[in-house]
Amino acid sequence: MAKIAILGYGTIGAGVAKVLETNAEIIRERAGEPVEVKYILDLRDFPGDPNEAKVIHDYNIITEDPEIDVVVECMGGTGAAYAFVKEALLKGRSVATSNKELVASRGSELISIARDQKANFFFEASVGGGIPIIRPLLTSLTGDRIEKISGILNGTTNYMLTQMEHHGVSFDDALKDAQEKGYAELHPEADVEGFDACRKIAILTSLVCGCQVPYEDIYTEGIRNITAEDIRYAAALDGKIKLLADSWRDGDHIYAMVSPMIVKNDHPLAGVNDVFNAVFVRGNMVDDTMFYGKGAGSLPTASAVAGDVIDCIRRRGEHFEIAWDPSKMNLSNCDEYERKFFVRMPADTPYSVIEESFGPVEPIRLPGLDEKAFVTALMKEGDFKNAANRLGTVISRIRMES
Amino acid sequence: MAKIAILGYGTIGAGVAKVLETNAEIIRERAGEPVEVKYILDLRDFPGDPNEAKVIHDYNIITEDPEIDVVVECMGGTGAAYAFVKEALLKGRSVATSNKELVASRGSELISIARDQKANFFFEASVGGGIPIIRPLLTSLTGDRIEKISGILNGTTNYMLTQMEHHGVSFDDALKDAQEKGYAELHPEADVEGFDACRKIAILTSLVCGCQVPYEDIYTEGIRNITAEDIRYAAALDGKIKLLADSWRDGDHIYAMVSPMIVKNDHPLAGVNDVFNAVFVRGNMVDDTMFYGKGAGSLPTASAVAGDVIDCIRRRGEHFEIAWDPSKMNLSNCDEYERKFFVRMPADTPYSVIEESFGPVEPIRLPGLDEKAFVTALMKEGDFKNAANRLGTVISRIRMES
Repeated sequence: MAKIAILGYGTIGAGVAKVLETNAEIIRERAGEPVEVKYILDLRDFPGDPNEAKVIHDYNIITEDPEIDVVVECMGGTGAAYAFVKEALLKGRSVATSNKELVASRGSELISIARDQKANFFFEASVGGGIPIIRPLLTSLTGDRIEKISGILNGTTNYMLTQMEHHGVSFDDALKDAQEKGYAELHPEADVEGFDACRKIAILTSLVCGCQVPYEDIYTEGIRNITAEDIRYAAALDGKIKLLADSWRDGDHIYAMVSPMIVKNDHPLAGVNDVFNAVFVRGNMVDDTMFYGKGAGSLPTASAVAGDVIDCIRRRGEHFEIAWDPSKMNLSNCDEYERKFFVRMPADTPYSVIEESFGPVEPIRLPGLDEKAFVTALMKEGDFKNAANRLGTVISRIRMES
Repeated sequence: MAKIAILGYGTIGAGVAKVLETNAEIIRERAGEPVEVKYILDLRDFPGDPNEAKVIHDYNIITEDPEIDVVVECMGGTGAAYAFVKEALLKGRSVATSNKELVASRGSELISIARDQKANFFFEASVGGGIPIIRPLLTSLTGDRIEKISGILNGTTNYMLTQMEHHGVSFDDALKDAQEKGYAELHPEADVEGFDACRKIAILTSLVCGCQVPYEDIYTEGIRNITAEDIRYAAALDGKIKLLADSWRDGDHIYAMVSPMIVKNDHPLAGVNDVFNAVFVRGNMVDDTMFYGKGAGSLPTASAVAGDVIDCIRRRGEHFEIAWDPSKMNLSNCDEYERKFFVRMPADTPYSVIEESFGPVEPIRLPGLDEKAFVTALMKEGDFKNAANRLGTVISRIRMES
């Protein structure tokens, strides 16, 4: 019998309890023994909840109970969550977490403690919700050098962009709709400004590189400036606008960036709609792969946590080595990377002036819009910025996925 | 230093040697030690090949060399491949194979030998080539009850159907094109008749059920009768024709079937084109997921084998439990399962007669085709067959994916 403690009885914590109860028989078979939730730590009480009797308010009860095998952290943040996870690991317990902030900022340190204690720190649910992506990277695609990761890692913004595309609504209306449906929070900055996707690509890139990629170093641009017109232009270019969280290798350089990009319709990410997430991974041997599923939600995310719990139990007393060194990865400056840019400018800018700054461009016209729009040739992002600054009248610019 | 032997130096065996050489440094890090190919068993010699000196013709050299940790089987078939793999496992070596026939017919037995010997029998490459699907099913989606697997598991037929769709060519022309490009063999039955996909869905279903699903018991229908007109009808129904290898749970029933089906365009499998494969998996907690990538080809398939080799080395002396009991799974009779059918009949059949047999139908017309075409309501496959037999004049019928 394996006993676990869940820290935080919110959406995901309650989901974990539900998965372990609903699929108890299957999970018993796969873990090799029954798995029981012994404690649920939360500041609140839950009168009438079927798990009411398991709710405790004092973390020390968990640390001091030698029966607890695995601690599930679903509190979020890096304050108490960090302190509790660290203490659990130091006591030799394994930890499964859904907390992307904790993993992005403290992953390397927590893995190192787990290693010393012959325990495990697993975090499949921290990226892509229910999508198996971290374990496949660590245990399946191990014969490959990963060349590129390109993720639709935030369901809220993907839902909004899909609404804008399918119904021609504005950013503000799409946001209001997402808030009404419960997909976006009242303060939606973490999603809309790309901060959530940034933490997630920082985690994936750290795992691919084997060292610490600070999320603060990743250039991050959200979707707040994307308009319904931009999306119509993307369609005219046979593509879609997606908020991509990318990292990629170019020779000895590693780049990472979160930004809305125009993805061509024949790219597998173009068909990922609504709240679904997907992670495109290119290896130097396996070529293109993609992992698709629900990137958020109580049960899908809890499914990933439950998979981690089962793996912790199967590996009891044995550390699964995850190479994530504390040394800091120096990302290359994206200004040096070459790509194409989609640009809109006022109608009165002559193409001669445009091409003087951007070089040869491919114009594109949308009926009813009196402006100049075009796609540049491949150019370094730094050169593009300089040219755009010189002209000073760019209405919008969106990176072309490459 | 881990030493391995490769059985069969064809497309995949040579790919494995290439992956291990090209990514030697990465693989050394992930395996925890260098990985070296010591022997390559083949009937042929390979004069001038960089691995020429490693080629041997006598399997006993491998069995008798205690240095060999892992045997990689890429011979195919169930004759010598079975004998050699069994002997390797009985000697306590782990085995990684790409051989779907061997796994589908002998998986349970070979896993059982590996268990007794504290070794491993891994076969990620046997389904979906480079796509990580078997390990995610066994180690990630473990908290879920799998409700459905729906796979595009044969790249040759998917390429042909994509050509027929995009260029309006006939089955025969698409086959000729696939043969010229090297995607289809001179005797293409294994692909075209669905036998290859059948082996693969038998393996996945066995893993999901934990017992033996005999591939002979899976109803299998290929794409030979699919015409360019059928594909135009599918487009008019907002869908595509895909050769699906499916298994699904309905109450206490497990069904499995390989058949061309009309997949609606909003299904993630609809966007899987050309030689790409994908496996759609629905769990009762994680909901819909999909795994996408190259289902064949030397390096993608070899990437999956290399991942298995690394896992074998990391788990040396320790068996990873795969629940695959030898007891036979009794699949339910697909005649009992309800779905919709797309049907084409001669123009002179009155709708009154059609609806007398099939119940209410939704007619669909394509310009230039003088015939009756329609989609039935949900009906049991057995009832559909009886009705179609009574009428006797069905031009074609294609299952609607459900």
